[in-house]
Amino acid sequence: MGKVYLVGAGPGDSWLTPSCVPGILKVADVVLYDKLIDESLLKNASEAELIYVGKAPNKHAMRQEEINKLLVELAKKHNIVVRLKGGDPFVLGRGDEECDYLLEHGIECRVIPAPTSATAVPACAGIPVTRRNLANTFAVATGRAAEGSKVPKYGEMLNVVDTLVVLMGVGKVKEITEDILTKHGDVPAAAIQEGCTKRQKVVLSMASNLAEVMERNGLEPPAILVFGKVVKWAWKRGLVRDVVEARF
Amino acid sequence: MGKVYLVGAGPGDSWLTPSCVPGILKVADVVLYDKLIDESLLKNASEAELIYVGKAPNKHAMRQEEINKLLVELAKKHNIVVRLKGGDPFVLGRGDEECDYLLEHGIECRVIPAPTSATAVPACAGIPVTRRNLANTFAVATGRAAEGSKVPKYGEMLNVVDTLVVLMGVGKVKEITEDILTKHGDVPAAAIQEGCTKRQKVVLSMASNLAEVMERNGLEPPAILVFGKVVKWAWKRGLVRDVVEARF
Repeated sequence: MGKVYLVGAGPGDSWLTPSCVPGILKVADVVLYDKLIDESLLKNASEAELIYVGKAPNKHAMRQEEINKLLVELAKKHNIVVRLKGGDPFVLGRGDEECDYLLEHGIECRVIPAPTSATAVPACAGIPVTRRNLANTFAVATGRAAEGSKVPKYGEMLNVVDTLVVLMGVGKVKEITEDILTKHGDVPAAAIQEGCTKRQKVVLSMASNLAEVMERNGLEPPAILVFGKVVKWAWKRGLVRDVVEARF
Repeated sequence: MGKVYLVGAGPGDSWLTPSCVPGILKVADVVLYDKLIDESLLKNASEAELIYVGKAPNKHAMRQEEINKLLVELAKKHNIVVRLKGGDPFVLGRGDEECDYLLEHGIECRVIPAPTSATAVPACAGIPVTRRNLANTFAVATGRAAEGSKVPKYGEMLNVVDTLVVLMGVGKVKEITEDILTKHGDVPAAAIQEGCTKRQKVVLSMASNLAEVMERNGLEPPAILVFGKVVKWAWKRGLVRDVVEARF
């Protein structure tokens, strides 16, 4: 019986991938990889079978249940199965589900954490999620709650934390910002597309006009949203990079 | 005039360090490094002057203001100055301050994000901060608010997010858990010492007896605290590793 490694590649291109990852890929028998992976990483997996299981919004290459089953099947045949994911597998990455399913079937599962886009993408754009005397707390929420799950309380979160990062929130930006305006009030905001890559694109505005500014500049997934005073602070201090529009 | 790179080494030993870091260290003229760095990383900095500026709790090798000034001074003399930090420089890591000070003095500052201990340390212990249908939000807070800063509202955070991670909270565990019990109610908790290393040590309990269980098992900084249903879920599912005591 083999082992499954749930490996985080980090966000963006592979420069942020943990240093142990090439070695793990080198000894892998089979690698299941996602859409958001920098494919140059796969060159390390020179002896492995490569299986694409990536997902695009509203377009699934393989359903989660199928991926789970495939991992079990492969672990029964191989020693080292690698499940390579963008970002961090345990931060809104469904690594929890895959690990759970594997353990249920008696297969060992190990997680290799990576920079999560929740903190690394703002950092690459020059926005720290924390800032001394301005922000010593932050929250991370999904923008796409799973069916049957509760929708995160975006506005109420901003009443008790200083910075809010929303992953997978582009399609719901109107609902998210409306909740923030109703429950908390207006606040500086940023949307960052393709963070931590050369193609990185940033817009800055207030939450109240974020949807409009994003639309005007054609911001599309994958992108993350950041809300809080740190956004405006970083912009004023000249820290923010690759800004296509700033309208506070 | 040189450039300063604020480089994250990630938590624990260097296996999680971003893959670009050895290359940056290789071309560095000077490296300022912290206490929590895996020193084997410094072997890459074969042509650099190495300066230790690490901090221990209540024992500063160099004050933050001195580090800021030294960075400016060095950037005036050298091309590539590396400030190497444990974890992620922009997640409660004072990278914001250093960047701000450098920019104020006309010096370019770049951040290399890394896995933050806030998510990577729970992952290495087998605890995902998010879990489908159980946790689609989490918050991160400091346990040691800077002088003049507000103390995070730990209990109230847990009223609106599913998981709470507290960094640098060992010394304040009684105050933190009391706030959680008063404002939110009892909740499963974990403390993880030296996460993502071979020496990793985990205790699990309810928030109400966390201080006692940590004390009995001699848990000391560096350690992080995790609160929320995911802790008990991960334990029940057999995911949690290196547990020295579990008492829910």
